[in-house]
Amino acid sequence: MSPHLNAIILAGGSGTRFWPASRRRRPKQLLPLAGRPDESLIAATVRRIEPLVPPERVWIATGATLVDATAAALPRVPRAHVLAEPVARNTAPCIGWATSTIARLDPDAVVAVLPADHFIADEPAFRDVLARAVTAAEGGWLTTIGIVPTRPETGYGYIEVGDAVAEGVRAAVRFIEKPDRRRAEELVATGRYLWNAGMFFYRARVMKEAIARHLPALAAGLARIDGAAATGDEPRALAEVFPSLPSISIDHGVMEKAERIAVVPGQFGWNDVGSWEVAWEMAPHDAHHNAVPDGSVTIDATGNLVKDLSRGASSKRWALVGVHDLVIVETDDAVLVVPRSRVQDVRAVVDLLQEREETERL
Amino acid sequence: MSPHLNAIILAGGSGTRFWPASRRRRPKQLLPLAGRPDESLIAATVRRIEPLVPPERVWIATGATLVDATAAALPRVPRAHVLAEPVARNTAPCIGWATSTIARLDPDAVVAVLPADHFIADEPAFRDVLARAVTAAEGGWLTTIGIVPTRPETGYGYIEVGDAVAEGVRAAVRFIEKPDRRRAEELVATGRYLWNAGMFFYRARVMKEAIARHLPALAAGLARIDGAAATGDEPRALAEVFPSLPSISIDHGVMEKAERIAVVPGQFGWNDVGSWEVAWEMAPHDAHHNAVPDGSVTIDATGNLVKDLSRGASSKRWALVGVHDLVIVETDDAVLVVPRSRVQDVRAVVDLLQEREETERL
Repeated sequence: MSPHLNAIILAGGSGTRFWPASRRRRPKQLLPLAGRPDESLIAATVRRIEPLVPPERVWIATGATLVDATAAALPRVPRAHVLAEPVARNTAPCIGWATSTIARLDPDAVVAVLPADHFIADEPAFRDVLARAVTAAEGGWLTTIGIVPTRPETGYGYIEVGDAVAEGVRAAVRFIEKPDRRRAEELVATGRYLWNAGMFFYRARVMKEAIARHLPALAAGLARIDGAAATGDEPRALAEVFPSLPSISIDHGVMEKAERIAVVPGQFGWNDVGSWEVAWEMAPHDAHHNAVPDGSVTIDATGNLVKDLSRGASSKRWALVGVHDLVIVETDDAVLVVPRSRVQDVRAVVDLLQEREETERL
Repeated sequence: MSPHLNAIILAGGSGTRFWPASRRRRPKQLLPLAGRPDESLIAATVRRIEPLVPPERVWIATGATLVDATAAALPRVPRAHVLAEPVARNTAPCIGWATSTIARLDPDAVVAVLPADHFIADEPAFRDVLARAVTAAEGGWLTTIGIVPTRPETGYGYIEVGDAVAEGVRAAVRFIEKPDRRRAEELVATGRYLWNAGMFFYRARVMKEAIARHLPALAAGLARIDGAAATGDEPRALAEVFPSLPSISIDHGVMEKAERIAVVPGQFGWNDVGSWEVAWEMAPHDAHHNAVPDGSVTIDATGNLVKDLSRGASSKRWALVGVHDLVIVETDDAVLVVPRSRVQDVRAVVDLLQEREETERL
C-alpha cells in the first residue's frame, strides 16, 4: 500500500450504553466488547489495518480526558499521534485538524478515517474494500464505504448509490439521515442504498479544499492552528481556536455538499456493537445460547450474557439456574442486571447516577 | 434463672441450601441470613438467651472442621465449650455427649438444647416460653417447645398436644414425622398439633436415665467417654467410641419413646430460614419488595433479593432494571442467579460442583 496512507481513528465516545463496563473515562472503544476476548475494540481497529497502515502512520483523535487510557491501549502507536481535542465539536473539526496535522508532515498524504468502536468479522474482505476505497481516494474522490444492508435498520444513515466510477466503486448520489421504519424498509427494498458506517478516505489536499469551500469558518480556524504549529505554539492556539469551531459532522459539513463523492459497497460482517444485546449476539455461545464465563454452571438457563470484568473474575464461578435472556455485567464497583430486551434502559441508570452525583461510577 | 441452666447449641450443618454463601466450612448458622445485618444466626442464638443463660454456660456441638470458625463467631463462649464431634452421628449421640460433659461439672444441671440456625422475631416472647420450658424441665419433664403452625407446612415434624400439666405446659401425646400436604392440612385444621422446632429442655440426670433406658448402646458409649474423661483421656476415647454410636435423632431415639414428655406452645415469630426464598421474605424490603444493598438502583424491578457478601460489596453499586423475583447472591468466588421460585434447585448446582470436584467452592 502507499507509503502516503495514514489512518485517523475516531475515538471519542461518552460511554453510557455499555455501563457499567463503559464509563466517561473508559468508553466503549477501550473495552473488549466483541471479537478477541482480551482485545479492545480500538486495538482491533488498529491491528486489522496493519497490513495496509503500520502503527507509525496511525493517528488517534480523542478527548483530552481519554488520552492516557487510549495511548495505553495502543502501545505501538506513537504517543504524539494521540490527538486530544480540547472540547468535542463533532467530526468535521476533529477530522479537519487531524488531516492538517498529517498534511504538515506529508502534503501528499492519503487518509483513511475509521471509527474506533466497530467490529468486523471478515478482516481480509474488509481490507480488500479499504484498499479499493484508498485507490478511489488517490484518484481524487472523497470516498466512503457503504455497508450492504441486512435489515431495515433505523439507527444508521443511508447512502444512495449511483453509477460505477471504477471497478467496485460507485458514485454516491446523496446521504440520507436515519430514516423511520417505513422509510428504512423502502430504502432497503430498492437495493440502491447502503449503510453509512462513518468511514472516509481522501487525499489530505482534497479534503482541505473541500473544507475551505464548504466550511470556511473551519478552514480559517485550522489555518490559525497550522500557523501556530509552525512556531511551536499549537497547544495554545488549539485551546483558543477549537471551542470556536463550528460543531458539525463531516457528513453534513462536507460529504453531502461536495462533488466527486464515491462509495465502495462492502460486506464484511460489519457491526457497530451498539448495545449489550449486540454484544450478546456477537459473543461465543454455548448450546443454550448463553454467553457466560468459562466454567459457569447453567441449569435450565438460556440466552444469557454474563460479562464479568471485575478483578476477581478469573477465579469466580457463575451459576445460573432457571433464568433466561438476561444481561449481567459486573465490574469492580458496579453490577447491572437487565433483560436483553431492555438494554436500552441502561441509559436511565446512568441518568439516575448522574442525578445522584455518583460521578465516580459514571 | 437457675444457675444450673446450661444451653447446648446444635451447630452442625452441611451448607448446601445457601450456596454460594454457605459452604462446608461456613454453613448457614455462621451467616447473617436474617435479623441484624452483621450478626450470624449462631451469634443471635447465643445473644438472645443471654438474659437466661450467660455465655460461660453455653456449649456448642459442632463438627471438627467447624470448630475454629464457630469459636471465632462466638468470642464470649469459652473455647473449651465448643465440642467437636469426630463424625456426625445425628442428634442423639451429640446431645448425649454434650449433656454428659455438662453433668460432669454440674450433676444438677438443667439443659436447654437449641438449634443454631433459626430466626426468632419476638425475642422477649421467646424467652418467656423458654423460661416456662425450663421450669417444666426442672419438674422432671423432658420438655420441648411446639410452634403454633401458621400454614400446613410439609417440611417440619408435628407434635400432638395433650392435657395441660402446668400453666402453659401441655403433655406431648406423640411426635409425627414430616407429613404430606393433605395430612399437614388435616393436622393444622384440628388445632391440636404444633411444629417440632428441635428445641429440648431437661434435667441432665433425667436425659441420662432416658438414654440408658431407650438407647442403651449410646449410654454405654457415653459411659466409656465419661470414664476416659476422668483420666484425661477423653479425646482418644471420643475418636474411638463416637463412630460406633448409633446414628439416630433425639426425637426418634428418646422423645418418642420416653414418658413424661411435655410441650410448651410458642408463638414468637419463629422461622427456620430454610431457603433463599425465606431469606428474602425476612429481609427488609423497599417499596417494590426488593431486598437489595443500600444505594442500589432499581428501575421497574420488583421482588428481588440481592445478597452481596463479597469483600468489595460496600463500594459496589447494584443496578436492577426490569427484573423480577430474582435471587442474586455474590461471594468472593461465586455468584448465584436464580428465580425465587426455584431456589430449591441450588442443590443441583452444589451437586454439579461436587461432580466436577470443585471442592474449593463447596
